[in-house]
Amino acid sequence: MADRVAGPEIERLIQLLARLPGLGPRSARRAALHLMRKREDLLGPLADAMALARERIVTCSACGNIDTIDPCTICCDVRRDATTLVVVETVADLWALERAAVVRGRYHVLGGVLSPLDGVGPDDLNLAGLVDRVSGAGLSEIILAVNATVDGQTTAHYVTDLLAHLDLKVTRLAHGVPVGGELDYLDEGTLAAAMRSRTAF
Amino acid sequence: MADRVAGPEIERLIQLLARLPGLGPRSARRAALHLMRKREDLLGPLADAMALARERIVTCSACGNIDTIDPCTICCDVRRDATTLVVVETVADLWALERAAVVRGRYHVLGGVLSPLDGVGPDDLNLAGLVDRVSGAGLSEIILAVNATVDGQTTAHYVTDLLAHLDLKVTRLAHGVPVGGELDYLDEGTLAAAMRSRTAF
Repeated sequence: MADRVAGPEIERLIQLLARLPGLGPRSARRAALHLMRKREDLLGPLADAMALARERIVTCSACGNIDTIDPCTICCDVRRDATTLVVVETVADLWALERAAVVRGRYHVLGGVLSPLDGVGPDDLNLAGLVDRVSGAGLSEIILAVNATVDGQTTAHYVTDLLAHLDLKVTRLAHGVPVGGELDYLDEGTLAAAMRSRTAF
Repeated sequence: MADRVAGPEIERLIQLLARLPGLGPRSARRAALHLMRKREDLLGPLADAMALARERIVTCSACGNIDTIDPCTICCDVRRDATTLVVVETVADLWALERAAVVRGRYHVLGGVLSPLDGVGPDDLNLAGLVDRVSGAGLSEIILAVNATVDGQTTAHYVTDLLAHLDLKVTRLAHGVPVGGELDYLDEGTLAAAMRSRTAF
């Protein structure tokens, strides 16, 4: 109906906005109206920022991160610990770890997890790149920072097997009670893991 | 932190996306990553759609609607009933009524509601335009389709007073139980209004 009202340009803008994660058809309309009310402040700058991103953004050929340079800022950063490689599922996970500032090494982005149900096999992930990278460099530790989901853990096991012939320390993130978490709200799996991995106080 | 990781272009894109209604900092990051993963499918087309909107979108000088032509598609539509004018608060409300296809006349967008607490007075709304428009044309009915909020109803009263000297039928939307609504979940105000305006069955 709305294209009768507002013209095909606006309708197309709404349809494209609705494809962003977190926006449905209704919130996409609200976002479009907001953009059109803030033509100079927001619509213009956002159009320019997107055009610039489309032009400049590249996937890092070394680690799979997204950046405006290849290799990416992290891979180029000589202050980073070259002996540690953190394997993550997605760029979003890489960003989350960077925000927490807990990684001194570099990353390797798999681009997903093994998921037989969704038809994602080893060939769909950036695994060949990982083996190449690990074989060549003077690495001492591979940290598997994958999600604590079934698919994530399956992937972690697969990667461990893949790297078994190399003499490398392979570690994974600790499982346990999240900081600030209340036991009452946690699932049995988390509580069991936290109990198993309890440490001296 | 993230600009250390991803470069200023991506950081700026995230900041701008976070200013859309319905997206916070976290979902803006997710949206940015989604856009960058779908560079050809989504980022490019959305950048183009926004650039086109910025260039083409105008506010209708007659009614205040947003469109790519001025007067807007609705004001130009000769099949519309020229004797009825529907007064709405925002373009979003106009779109909602058009989606419901319940208006045969034309619209007048006030651009907000009177709200002393927020410092919105009569001069901030498109009221002068309304008086001009109503005085000239051969209108027979003004429908006040404002929200059933305190500010909306205050605005409705103000508009009614403003048009009192003209010999015009001024109506407002009915209040009552929403279609599909359950009484148990409705507030007392709605139930009282529904009871007062009960109709023969």
